[in-house]
This record gives sequence, structure tokens and C-alpha cells, in this order.
Amino acid sequence: MVLVNNGFLSLPGNYLFSEIARKVESYKNLHPDADLIRMGIGDVTRPLAKAVTDAMHEAVSDMSVAETFKGYGPEQGYGFLIEKIIENDFVQRGIEIAPDEVFISDGCKSDMGNIGDLFARENTVAVTDPVYPVYVDSNVMGGRAGSLLKSGKWNNIIYLPCTAENGFIPDLPESPVDIIYLCFPNNPTGTTLKKNELKKWVDYALEAGSLILFDAAYEAFISEEDVPHSIYEIEGAKNCAIEFRSFSKSAGFTGIRCGYTVVPKNITAGSASHGKGNLNSLWRRRQATKFNGVSYVTQKAAEAVYSDEGRKQCKDNIDYYMENAAIIRDCLKSVGLEVFGGINAPYIWFRTPGKRDSWGFFERMLSEIQVIGTPGVGFGPSGEGYMRLTAFGSKEDTVVAMSRFKSWNI
Amino acid sequence: MVLVNNGFLSLPGNYLFSEIARKVESYKNLHPDADLIRMGIGDVTRPLAKAVTDAMHEAVSDMSVAETFKGYGPEQGYGFLIEKIIENDFVQRGIEIAPDEVFISDGCKSDMGNIGDLFARENTVAVTDPVYPVYVDSNVMGGRAGSLLKSGKWNNIIYLPCTAENGFIPDLPESPVDIIYLCFPNNPTGTTLKKNELKKWVDYALEAGSLILFDAAYEAFISEEDVPHSIYEIEGAKNCAIEFRSFSKSAGFTGIRCGYTVVPKNITAGSASHGKGNLNSLWRRRQATKFNGVSYVTQKAAEAVYSDEGRKQCKDNIDYYMENAAIIRDCLKSVGLEVFGGINAPYIWFRTPGKRDSWGFFERMLSEIQVIGTPGVGFGPSGEGYMRLTAFGSKEDTVVAMSRFKSWNI
Repeated sequence: MVLVNNGFLSLPGNYLFSEIARKVESYKNLHPDADLIRMGIGDVTRPLAKAVTDAMHEAVSDMSVAETFKGYGPEQGYGFLIEKIIENDFVQRGIEIAPDEVFISDGCKSDMGNIGDLFARENTVAVTDPVYPVYVDSNVMGGRAGSLLKSGKWNNIIYLPCTAENGFIPDLPESPVDIIYLCFPNNPTGTTLKKNELKKWVDYALEAGSLILFDAAYEAFISEEDVPHSIYEIEGAKNCAIEFRSFSKSAGFTGIRCGYTVVPKNITAGSASHGKGNLNSLWRRRQATKFNGVSYVTQKAAEAVYSDEGRKQCKDNIDYYMENAAIIRDCLKSVGLEVFGGINAPYIWFRTPGKRDSWGFFERMLSEIQVIGTPGVGFGPSGEGYMRLTAFGSKEDTVVAMSRFKSWNI
Repeated sequence: MVLVNNGFLSLPGNYLFSEIARKVESYKNLHPDADLIRMGIGDVTRPLAKAVTDAMHEAVSDMSVAETFKGYGPEQGYGFLIEKIIENDFVQRGIEIAPDEVFISDGCKSDMGNIGDLFARENTVAVTDPVYPVYVDSNVMGGRAGSLLKSGKWNNIIYLPCTAENGFIPDLPESPVDIIYLCFPNNPTGTTLKKNELKKWVDYALEAGSLILFDAAYEAFISEEDVPHSIYEIEGAKNCAIEFRSFSKSAGFTGIRCGYTVVPKNITAGSASHGKGNLNSLWRRRQATKFNGVSYVTQKAAEAVYSDEGRKQCKDNIDYYMENAAIIRDCLKSVGLEVFGGINAPYIWFRTPGKRDSWGFFERMLSEIQVIGTPGVGFGPSGEGYMRLTAFGSKEDTVVAMSRFKSWNI
């Protein structure tokens, strides 16, 4: 009889954002006229840059005639896109990356989830807490999490609390860890690590033989100096870190699906019986076997993000969202809330007043001011008592939502 | 220290088609003027149907203005596409499928690879032999294959030979198996199972509590009566089979990336410790965690495949390829080769003359007539002594390749 992977059965049934969507749907059914403002899921609202849609139209036209039609593309992605990525995202920051270290994918979430395929069950995984749920959930599926405790933690995962008390700067783990997920600028807290803080992690990983999985999906939102845009700005990182990037937020590709992963060629991982594995080769083998590349039209769209017009237009959208972030920060502070993030990231993280639990405050926001946030505890136990709002809405909606906060008797 | 998944290290380094690409590249470097004709990888060459590119242009325009811009789509895919799939691919064949049983993806290869996430390592897997390499390789990665034997077989995988001797109809396994991969019309042999033959497998699975993973990627090429287009034409299959479909070959989407998977809601799998798992729920959880949906533009393209013009234009392309298939079949037979497939599938499978080994014959074809095929043994031990040619080239190339066969002293 076919047997199921037990990891799946121990996982709570719902992915966080699916759970929120269901709660909102049920509220809407009861209150069909409610004017809901969605500041929960981190989905963009600005249309694609004109340079991007122009490139897409051209690519669709390429697909309509035999001479320029494209079937399967190169496994790792088209050279035209990989070149632009290397030049713009790395060389201009003084980082050398080889073309065969870049893997184009349908998004950061797929890669962050699938990368677990490469690792043995025996690895000890550490996550910052709160954290993007995919890191934990995919390790539950991979059999590395153990059992779910009453605290909301998994007994085999090491949680590194990031709270107002430590300035959202995680401490190095007290016991050895093999795989460390870091996301900076951080989802959900919107906070960052300075170079010297990130360097501590690279040094730790090099010393311990650990691997850092560095999620840089929000890199484009960095506004302050001394905040690293890539972990490879830190010396030695190419020996211990895989970096994940996304066009979802930087160029509004949530509905288009494109990201990329950098797997440096000199990272190895141990093995009980077969010597060492080269992670670049293993990821190439994984992608060649369980993935078949990204749409040519999408890769052309991503290439256009790096054109002069594309960069300017995408930057305009980012500025638009960051203006929302400033509006949200200012308003929440003005009503007396304790507010974090929103300066180098499109997320604003705030403490629920009176130490209310996150889901309870989520429900109150929904029913009393019809604003949808994300309960901090949904990102992990250390998120309890916090909420996340996103700056990805329209300015109009953001202003209305904030006016509701102002007139709300919290 | 980070430890690698041993399954990966036991896997031969190269995915079959990557290996062929490398051999061809090396030949081209030595013979830059060679006029190579590619009949190896099953990649299409006809441009997309006009109905499809029209729909894509419209979708790109939707993405360029805020009012019609789309961010993250519904997790399982847009309702507009799921409805069309159910109506055209199932209802019209008398099959009822619910919308939440259909999962839109970026292609059949991703889903066939990733579905393994759901299953315990302890399952015994059976594959027909020869077979699409993804089924075996993804199970090696998942730890279900055991060790590679000198015969080219993995010791924990049950191989079901399909050769000229048994008319390419696999026998039921002699020892119990839990998961059975079936692909009909078959890649690589191009052969099919009639309804009564497929029914034997459904009956077996129902009796044994096994799961059938049914790859129907080549369904659109079926020309004969009594060949099932979907496994759900067989009574009981909705209790024991997951079906995988692709737009890659039916609508030329190899460079666009779209497919779908049907996971009926009443299939369960056992578990040592947690009761039964519902595979529909588990796949939804897997996709919500490690995938983020398919481009809106791509889903609009797929929807257009089902429009009146789309159907006609895609059918014209299929007819074009199947005319190539007939040309290949006739020519290879006329030069005395033993030929299979090519009637309900775009693949022609033939025995190498004089029982030459597949890679040897691949090299001879490449160096003597500059035609690239796929060595049968690349698909499994029972493929030794066979070659696969695809009908997906242009008619001109197909005719030239066949004229080279005719004048070749094989």
C-alpha cells in the first residue's frame, strides 16, 4: 500500500496566507458590503513597468513565427538574462559571479522550498524567529523539523528570536547548526543587518562548516548605507552561502513568476558515505530533473528590468511603495504604537497594543476597521504580539487605512 | 557540518538530455560546418497558435495598467483555465472532475518530479522500462531507489520491461508495488495501451492499494479508437490514479511552461503513525508551500488553447508533426528497420540494426549522417538496442534526415 511522507501529516493543514485568505473570505460572506483594505499578503499592486511589458509583447511576437520561436530554453536560464543579472546585481557591487553559478527560476519561494531536496535529514536547521513560513514548513516536509511542540516550535529546529528586545538582531546559535536561513531585509519584520552583523554569520558558518541560505528578495528596498545588498559583499560568503533573489517585489513580478538563485561553485557539503557533494552540481542536477526552466517571455521581461528605462520605472514603483511605508510608519507611531521596519523594506512590523495576541488583533482589525494585516505569530512564536502590514497597496488605500487607524479606539 | 542528501550523490551526474546536448556540442566544436538535424530531445518547432499569442498580448496589456494588473493568482490556478480544462479534457469524455482536483503548474516535468515529496521512502516503486528518466531520477533523489546495479537498474525499483517481444505491453508486477508510473501514449516508445490493458492496471492498483502516477502528456496525439485519453475513462481510477497533463507538446508550450495535474479527492495513502493522508490535501499543501503559481500571461495562453480557433490551430500543428511521424516511419521501414510508435505519439522507436548498442548507434548517426537521435538505453536497460526519433522537427528537416537514412550504408 502506498505510504505517505509522515512529515506532511505532522504539518498544520494550512499555509499561513491561505489561512488568512479563508478568514477574509468568510468575513466577506457575512459582510458583503464591507470595504476591506488588504495589507496582509505581500502582493504588489502597481502595474508592470512599460519597458517590461514592451519586452513581453516583443517576446510573444517572437513565439508567433517559426524563425524566432523558442522551445525549451537553456536549463539554467537564458544567457541574455544571466549576463544582465551578473553585471547589475553583482559586478557593480564589486562581486564576481560566474554565469554557471546563476540559476533562473520561477521564483524565490520555489527555490527556497526545493533547495531542501539537496540536504540529508540529519542536518540541524536554524531559523530566525519570526520567519517566512516556507523555511520551516519545507523542512517539516523534508523530515528535519521533528515534532510540533505546544509552544508552536518544532523540537528539532533551532529558533533565533528577533524581537524588539534584541533590536531584531539574532544571536549566534548556542548549539551547532548545519543550515541557517537568513532573510535580510527581513520578512516579516522589515528590519536589516548591517555589514558587521552579517559578517558574524559568515564567519560562524565558515568556522562551523554550516551553510547559509540567504534570502535577499527585498534587496531593492534598501535605502540606508552599510546594509549589504548581497551576502557576497561579505568576505568568504562564496564558500558558505547560497543567495536567493526575486523579481516579485523589485519589479512587480508576483503574477509573472521569476527569480534566481546563486549557488557558488566552491560550496561543498559532507556525506556519510559518498564523500563530499558540490552544491552547484547538485542543484543543477535537481533543476534539470524536476524543473524545466522559465518561460522565454518571462525571461525577456526580467531582462528588461535591467534596461535604463526598466530600472527607472521599477525604481519609481519602489519609491511609490516606500512612500506608503513612510505614511504607515508615521501614522502608527502617531497613534502610539511601537513600530519597526519600513525603511529598508516594504514591511511594517508593530507591537499589538496591550500585549494582545496576534490573531486576536487580526480579527479586531478585520471586524472593526476592515483592514487586513498578517498576525505576527503566523511567522513563528517570537512574532506573537506583533502584526505585519505591507506597503504594497495603492497610496489611496494606504491613506484610507491609516485614517481608520487614527479614528480607531484601539 | 551541512550534510548532503545521499540520494543525489548516488545519481549519475547528468540528466540524459543534458548529456546528449554536451555530446552534440563537442561534435559541433570539432565540425563547425556540420549540418546537424536534431531529432533527439522532444522539443517542438512550430510557432504558437495565433489564438494563443493573441491571448498573451492581451494578458500582457492587462499587466500594464493598474485596473487589470494581476499579482499572485489563486494558488491552484485561475478558475477561467480550470473550467476550460474540465469541460474540454474531461466532461466531453464523460468524466467528472471537480475544480479543486485540478492543479495548474509550470509543466508536467515539475509535477512528476515534485509529487515524490508526498511519499514515504519505504514505498516500492515500479516503472515501465524504458521510461522517461525523471521518474527514476526523482526517486533516486527521494531515497526510494536503493543502489545502482551494473545492469543499469536500481535495486529497489521494479522494472517492467516493454520491448518488441511483449508488444510494449508491460506485465503486472510479480511482487507487490506501491507506486506505479505509467506513461501512455508512451515516451519513449510511442506505443499505447488499449482500454482493456489499462483497466488491468487500475484493477491491480485498487486491489493492492497502490497508486498509479499516469503521465498523459502525449494524449493529444492519439489517433486510434479504443486508446484512452485519460486514465479516468477507466472505472475506479479516481480512487487510485493521479494524472499529469501538459500543454508542452499539445500546444507547443515547451518554452512557455504550463501543465496541470489532477489529484482526485478520494485518494488516500497510508502512514505508519498518523492515520491516512488525503493526497489532494497534501498536494495542495505542497504546492502552497514550495510553488507560487503560474504566470497569468501563461494561464491566459493555456485558456486560448481551448478556444475554437486555438483548438483548430493546435490540431493543425499536431497534424503537421504526425505527418512527419509518418514520413519517418515509412522511411525507416523502407530501409529495413524494425519500427514502432509514431501513430498515437510523436515518437518513433526503432531497433538498431545488427543489435548495436544504443550509444554506439547514436554516435554513428551523429558522425555519419549528422542526425541526432536519443539512445534507447538512456531511458532504461530495456531500451538498449533501440533508438528514439522525434517528429517535432520541421517537415523540411525531417525529409532531409530521412533522405540521409536512405542513402546511408547502415
